[in-house]
Formats: sequence, C-alpha cells, structure tokens
Amino acid sequence: MDGERRECDWRETTWRPEVDRRPERKAAFSTNSGIELEPLYGDAPDGGLPGRYPYTRGIRPTMYRGRLWTMRQYAGFASARETNRRFKVLLESGQTGLSIAFDLPTQIGYDSDHPLAQAEVGRVGVPVNSLADMERLFEDIPLGEVSTSMTINATAAILLAMYVALARRQGVEPDRVRGTVQNDILKEYVARGNYRFPADPSLRLTTDVMAFCREEVPAWNTVSISGYHVREAGSTAVQELAFTLSHGRAYARAAVDAGLAVDDFAPRLSFFFNAHNHLFEEVAKFRAARRMWARIMREEFGAENPKSWMMRFHTQTAGSMLTSQQPDNNVVRVALQALAAVLGGTQSLHTNSRDEALSLPSEESARLALRTQQVIAEESGVADVIDPLGGAPYVESLTDRVEADALALMAKIDALGGPVKAIEAGFPQREIHRSAVEWQRKVERGEETVVGVNRYRVEESAPSIFRPDEGAREEVLADLSIVRAERDAAAVEGALRAVGEAARGSDNLVRPILAAVEAYATTGEICATLEAEFGTYKAPEVL
Amino acid sequence: MDGERRECDWRETTWRPEVDRRPERKAAFSTNSGIELEPLYGDAPDGGLPGRYPYTRGIRPTMYRGRLWTMRQYAGFASARETNRRFKVLLESGQTGLSIAFDLPTQIGYDSDHPLAQAEVGRVGVPVNSLADMERLFEDIPLGEVSTSMTINATAAILLAMYVALARRQGVEPDRVRGTVQNDILKEYVARGNYRFPADPSLRLTTDVMAFCREEVPAWNTVSISGYHVREAGSTAVQELAFTLSHGRAYARAAVDAGLAVDDFAPRLSFFFNAHNHLFEEVAKFRAARRMWARIMREEFGAENPKSWMMRFHTQTAGSMLTSQQPDNNVVRVALQALAAVLGGTQSLHTNSRDEALSLPSEESARLALRTQQVIAEESGVADVIDPLGGAPYVESLTDRVEADALALMAKIDALGGPVKAIEAGFPQREIHRSAVEWQRKVERGEETVVGVNRYRVEESAPSIFRPDEGAREEVLADLSIVRAERDAAAVEGALRAVGEAARGSDNLVRPILAAVEAYATTGEICATLEAEFGTYKAPEVL
Repeated sequence: MDGERRECDWRETTWRPEVDRRPERKAAFSTNSGIELEPLYGDAPDGGLPGRYPYTRGIRPTMYRGRLWTMRQYAGFASARETNRRFKVLLESGQTGLSIAFDLPTQIGYDSDHPLAQAEVGRVGVPVNSLADMERLFEDIPLGEVSTSMTINATAAILLAMYVALARRQGVEPDRVRGTVQNDILKEYVARGNYRFPADPSLRLTTDVMAFCREEVPAWNTVSISGYHVREAGSTAVQELAFTLSHGRAYARAAVDAGLAVDDFAPRLSFFFNAHNHLFEEVAKFRAARRMWARIMREEFGAENPKSWMMRFHTQTAGSMLTSQQPDNNVVRVALQALAAVLGGTQSLHTNSRDEALSLPSEESARLALRTQQVIAEESGVADVIDPLGGAPYVESLTDRVEADALALMAKIDALGGPVKAIEAGFPQREIHRSAVEWQRKVERGEETVVGVNRYRVEESAPSIFRPDEGAREEVLADLSIVRAERDAAAVEGALRAVGEAARGSDNLVRPILAAVEAYATTGEICATLEAEFGTYKAPEVL
Repeated sequence: MDGERRECDWRETTWRPEVDRRPERKAAFSTNSGIELEPLYGDAPDGGLPGRYPYTRGIRPTMYRGRLWTMRQYAGFASARETNRRFKVLLESGQTGLSIAFDLPTQIGYDSDHPLAQAEVGRVGVPVNSLADMERLFEDIPLGEVSTSMTINATAAILLAMYVALARRQGVEPDRVRGTVQNDILKEYVARGNYRFPADPSLRLTTDVMAFCREEVPAWNTVSISGYHVREAGSTAVQELAFTLSHGRAYARAAVDAGLAVDDFAPRLSFFFNAHNHLFEEVAKFRAARRMWARIMREEFGAENPKSWMMRFHTQTAGSMLTSQQPDNNVVRVALQALAAVLGGTQSLHTNSRDEALSLPSEESARLALRTQQVIAEESGVADVIDPLGGAPYVESLTDRVEADALALMAKIDALGGPVKAIEAGFPQREIHRSAVEWQRKVERGEETVVGVNRYRVEESAPSIFRPDEGAREEVLADLSIVRAERDAAAVEGALRAVGEAARGSDNLVRPILAAVEAYATTGEICATLEAEFGTYKAPEVL
C-alpha cells in the first residue's frame, strides 16, 4: 500500500513533470472524434512507468509522443553503386535510418574474387571488399546526418573500421557518427551460421569493438544482440527471448572479464528482435524483454546508470512467415507484425517487402514496406498513447508468463555452463530444431493455417521477380582489381602484419584493423590474417 | 463489494459452465510459444461478461473461439450474370456469406430502361429489375445454404420479396432463409441520399417488413441500422454511434407504435458500422455501442428477451479513407481497420479492396481483401481470446468517453423531437458537414497525414483499372424487354393494383408486393405504384 502511494507520488512528482517538459510531436493528441488523449492510461501491475525501471512500459518517458521510432529498411544487393541508389530512394521516401545488408562473402570475410565467394557475390546483400566500396555505398550521403545499422558479425570490426574511416574522410566528428554493428557471434553459432573464428577470439573481437567505441565513437551501438535469426530458424517467442538475453548476459560478462566497467559499455548494447504473427504474444515478448534486461543489468551486474538498464531494440518483421504463394497477402502479414512491434515499443523497425519470399525486394515493394510503417505511425493513432496495451489483463498476463517461461529456459542454459558451453553441447540448436519441426508438422496436419499455402490456395501464374543488374558482379570484380593495383602494396603489407601481431597479443584489435582499411587492405585479407592466428570455428554435430 | 462477489459467482456458476459446454473451433488455443490461452482475461469495469448484459465484451459467451465472424464481401456490378460469377469466385475463395451491392436505379426504384437510370445501370452495383434477375443472380447458389445481405433501403420491401419468392422456387423452407435487408431509410435522409418516399410511409414500409418477417421469415434481419454511410459522409466515431443508435431507437419506437411487441421484433434488428482508421477509438466505439443498445432496449423499451438486448453488427472498413494514390497502401489501411472490427467483436465483416478508390474491385483485389480477413482470423491469433483489449485502462477509458459523448449528442436529437424532426431541421446533416470540413482542413494544413496524399507522394503512372464487360448493359435491357414481353400482363396489372390499394389502406404492404414480384412486376413498376400514393421525399435545404 505504501509502495503504491510512493509509486503514485513518483508519477505525479517526477514522471509527469518530465513529460510536461519534453517536446511532443503534436500540440495535442486526439482521436477522430476529437477526444484528447492522455499520454498514459492505467498502471502496469509491476508499477512501472515509461522511462523508469524496469521499463516494462517503454524506455522513454514520452515514447512515440516525443519521437516516432526510426524507420530503418534493410537494403543491399548487387554492388555498392546499386545499393547507394536504393538508399537514396528510401531516404527520399521518408525513411529515417539506413541499414546495410552485406552479401555472405563479406559477412564471412572473403573477397568477391575468392573461389568460395563466386555465386554469392551481391546475392543477399552488398559486397564491400574495401574502403573504396564503402565510399561508393555512401556517395552523397553525409554520415553526420544518418544513423546506419550494419548486419555484420564475424567481420564486424572490419566493417565498423571502414565506416569510421569513411566518416574521417567526410570530416564528420567521431561523436556525430551514429549507428549499430550487429557484432553478435553467439547467435551465428546457434542459428544463422555466418561465423568464421572460434568462440574465444570472436568474443575478444566483440569486446574490443566495445572498448574501441567507448573511446572513439561514443554514440555507436557496439552489439545488437539478435533474437531475430534465432526466431527465423524456427524457435518460439520464449526461446527467442531466452537465448537472446542469455547471449546479452554472456557479452556483458565477457566485457567485465576483459576489464570494462559495466556502466561504460552497457549503455551501448542494443537488441534486435523478430515481430512474428501472434500479435499479443509478440507485444508481451517486447514488454517482458525490457523488464528482464533491466533486472539483469541492475541486479546481476550492479549497473548504476539507468542507460545500462534500458533495453533499446530494433525489430524486423518475420521474413520466415511470408509466403511465395499469393505474395500480396504478405502486405497484410507485415502490417500486423509491424503493429506488434509498435505496440511493443520498438526503437526502430524494418518491415519486410511482400516479394521477399521470392526475391530481393523491388523498388515498389520496398517503398510499400516503408509506407506500411508510415500508415501505422501517422494514420492509425496507435503511436499517440504510450504502451496502449499496458494494464490490459490479457497482455499483462502474457507478459508475466512469457517472462517466467524465458527465465526457466535461461536457467537451463546457465546449468549447462552458459551459452558457449550450451552451444558446444548443441542445446539451443536442438531446442530450436524441435520447435521448427513441431511448427512444420502442425502446418502439415492443418492445425496451423498458412493462408494460401495449406488453405485458400489458388492457381497462380509465375510472379514477376525483381533481379538486380546482371552486370554488377563484373563491376565489383573490376573495382576490386583496381583497388589492389592502385594501393600502396608495402603499406598494406605492413598494416596486415600489425593486425597479425595484435591478434597474437592482447592489444585492442580495432585500431590496427582501422589502419589496415585506411591503407585499402580488403575484408578478405584482414580476415585471412586473423584466421591464421585464431583458426576456424567447427560447428558441433548436434542433430 | 457485494455486487462484485455476485458477478464473480455468476462468472463461475453460469458463464464458465456455459463456455465449457459449447464447442470451440480448436481443442486448445495457444500462442506460438505453446502458452495455453484462457477464453477471457480480467474483468471489464462494468462487470460485464461476454454473452451477458450489457454485452460490452461481446454478445456470445465464447465469441470467436466458438465461431469466427462471417466474412461477407459486398459485391455487385454490371449484370446479374456477371455478379453471379463473382459470387461464385468469392464462395470458392472461402467467403462465408454473400452481400449484394445494387445499382443506384434499383436502390431508388427505377428500372434499367427508365430515362433517369441511363448511365447508372450496373455502375456501382447489380441491376435487379425483376424476379428474373434475382434468379440469374443466384443461379447454382442454394439459398438454404448461404446468408445474404442486401444493401437496399427505399426499395427494401421489393427486393426482400424477390428473395423470398426465389427461395420458394428453390423449395427452401422459410425458416431456413437467412439474411439481412438494410432497410434503414433514416440514414439515407441524413447522409446517403438514396431515398424515394417521405418519412412516414417509409417508416411504414420498414415496420411492415419487420411484421412480415416475424411471421414468414423468422431468421431474417429486418433492419440493418447503418452508421457506415454516416461515417463515410465525414462524421466522427461519436457521431456515427449517436446517429445510428438514435435511428435504431426511432425504428423500435415506430414498430411499437405500429402495435408490435418489442421482443417480437427487436431480436431481428441488426447494425452496420464503419471500421475507420483510429484503431483504439474504433474498438471502443464497438464496445460502447453494444452496451448502449442493451440499455436502450432493456431500460427504455422494457425488452425482456436477451436477444432483444444484444447488438449484432456487420462492419465494413472505411472506403473513404482509401486513396487513389499508391493504391497498394490501401491493403495496409484495410488490414488495420479490419483488425479494429475484430478486436471490437463484429459479427460479420467486409474488407474493402485496394482499388475501390479508383474503380470496382478486380477479382484479384477482391480476393486479397478476403485474404486480409483470413490472415487476421487464422494467423494472427487475435480471435483466440474473447475481447482481448477488455480491461485495458486505455480502451476502457475510451469506451466510457465515446459512450458519454454519444449519449450527449443523442440527447440533443431527442431535444429536437427525435431523428425525423432533427433531419427536417437539418441538424445531423450540418453536424456531419462540419466534421467533414474540419477533417478536410486538417489534411490541407498537414495536421492530419494521409500517406501518399499530403505526405510521401511519388510520381505515379496511371493505374490499371478494372472495368466490367461493356456489353452487360445491353444484356440487362434485353433481359428486361423479354420479361415485359413474356409475363402475363393482366396478372401484373392486377397485382400492381393490389399494391396501390394496400398503400392507400393500412394492410401490410409486403404481401401484395410479394404477389406482384411473383407475377414479374418490375422494381420500377412497384415503386411507381407506391409513389403515386406516398409522394416523393424532398430534402430540406440545410447548408
């Protein structure tokens, strides 16, 4: 009772004045009938208020009344030049942040002319072989004015270094460079498969990025701990949450073990979740995630800075739930999934394009995906009240239950000795596989409906598929040859030698990598140098 | 406190056993993570439970866990033959009920060969000149197995009679004939404009349909009191609700005045609402509507049959909010609007097609609109818990506020002497006009965003527009000539004379109209006969 009174005092004495002080997007928020809306309704059972520990209702006191989420569409294909054109289309269409999809060779650290790269060059993302490609990718895009997310993990340190090098060339002050590297290798071992080095040196690269950014690029998000791919691999909402938070805890532990103070790195950790089909469970998942992370940081790691407690996350709608059959149905799926992310309080959002089950998104589809966010943001009114489902008995009950189930699963991972040991034992891989198989069986038995797939089918003619310019690969290879021919070969050699020496020792690796990319050493060359010291990750046989 | 205990007893002793007894769609409802879902969470502040007065949480004890809403896509164009083909496509695509759009001449009571009909024949709906067209419209569709909704008002008695005559020919028992006539003339005067006769004889036609159906077609919904068009004309959610419930009350009053007992007609009254953009206000509107109607029926009319208290309603997404610019954006809008209808507990739903701002829907667009409902119903999980937003502080607060504001507006209409007097005074027309102008100004000033219209525009090439077969009109006229030539002219003349006599007297009009349609008298001929007795409605000058 006394706790309640104090909470109520806090609401009136602290939260409300803070809200009143902050600028909002509109002078007043009202419904279509002109009913003026309060910023917040009711109380969550855990007593939490937006912008206050444990942040169940959102990490900002005003949430989207202050500023909408960042609309950040993942894009990348063919070549840096082609992708630069797409970036400009998206920015002109009202997108508010960039997100780079890299091709697989770049993600694993092979140059486009490597025999293993071949058919994968420019297929699922853009190839970035050297700083020269990064320059082309951001031609006419000032890095001081956008924030950029990079889906890059095994080679995160290298691509981050290229971005920093480019910012220097553009004359952008380091503290104005904003963005995120995914840099989450554990989920690669668990679900995604784009790894290169074993766990220990990989975790060292992760913590080196954290330490480097703290000193040199303070507004950079150093790790984006990703449940997205765990979910795409077929896991459930609870598994997505549990594995992701376990990984987050492992990175934090590794950073502390490497000598960093929790409040020095934790404010720059961010998360990346999936927005899947079950509208209410997804909202519950996002709300539970914030509360769980806040408690881990404060109670387990003793963080004192509220920024360390706040879980900031990006969301992407579930690509795996899109169908190649009747692809326009995907527009509906994406709209509902995106709504879940917004009702769950995401900081940024990628909405998939309707044709992603078939091909790379065409320009029209990519624009429609962005329009989906804009309609939700500006026409539906859902962004005008903070945590609009907070206090709803159904949503609060699901929030508690998702949290409890995820905590139970995290305890199992702890009992196995933490995520790295659990991965070696094949535990998360088997858990995810089991869920994926179960879902597949339900679809086959008709217990789960996939509209247009196991029900409501129609005869369809072959859809039109977007294919990027076929000549792009030749161009990429030609660009790479020119870089190799024109750079100062001795400087490259020296810079790579320095990277190798740092890898053998314990100095922060990002600085010598930055020197190497500035000398136009390639992604593949730097990775090969590291591999010579670190070796290669061998996945356990688990199934 | 005592009230609460009794409510709780009722929940456990009455509601739960009833739920346990009823079959549900699935053996168990669970989330993607396998969390089993309760049918209902929390308590609404008004203590209501689903299936119990005042029905805020829904009119059925199990709602969509028992049976999904009826997916009922409005369709009609060109000719009875063309529309019959579209009906079959929709039924094959999984639609669960039919809904006929009639062309304007049919709605106002002019045959296709009337000089006033001309360019409007088959344009916004199907022309039905005589029973012969009704037969073509339902070729190979057994009336005993579908329920059919007809958007027909001034001429409702005639088209209903044709449907009944057709059922007789198909040998369907009258109690198996299920459907709805809109039969709501008041909103035609207020907002839609497809009226023919003055208010008094129009209300007589309305109550004659009620009385006829009670005796002959007991499962037929005799009036669908429609806020849809009031909203489309530019009103707010509160106005939509207030005018619609005022009209409902006026019909009930007219029926009581005509000597019907409330529990004899009220169970067959139904409603028709708009699902507009503001997600949460729309949900609140639907919840408030049920509660308000239940109170009107029980407290004001003294109805004792719970079926008289229950507001059943159809919903259509807001056509006026669709844009001809970037028409694919409409898929997103419709998905969100449809979600509001489902979260609000609608009994049936029409989702608009993306191309409706441009043209009649193409077959592909009509199918996608239906798929939108199927994805919501079968993939999103939102139908698996009853009134999932019930008890949410935001939604309950909006429910109360929308109700209070609507009651205040209804009191103004009462003060003017009820809806007919208010219409004569131009009150609702002016209210709606004011709201429409206000919205338009907000859009012009950029205070309201319409994606693709006042923001996020792009250069667009002319969209492909669906146009029905140009030859259809000739076919319709030829069919009509054949009917006129082949029928028994003396029988038609006698039947029309009987309609005129009934119109002069006070006998129920539907029986002589039924006899006339069975003799193949046309819609236009019957209407002209009635007009000779009733005169024509003259709209007041109001703006």
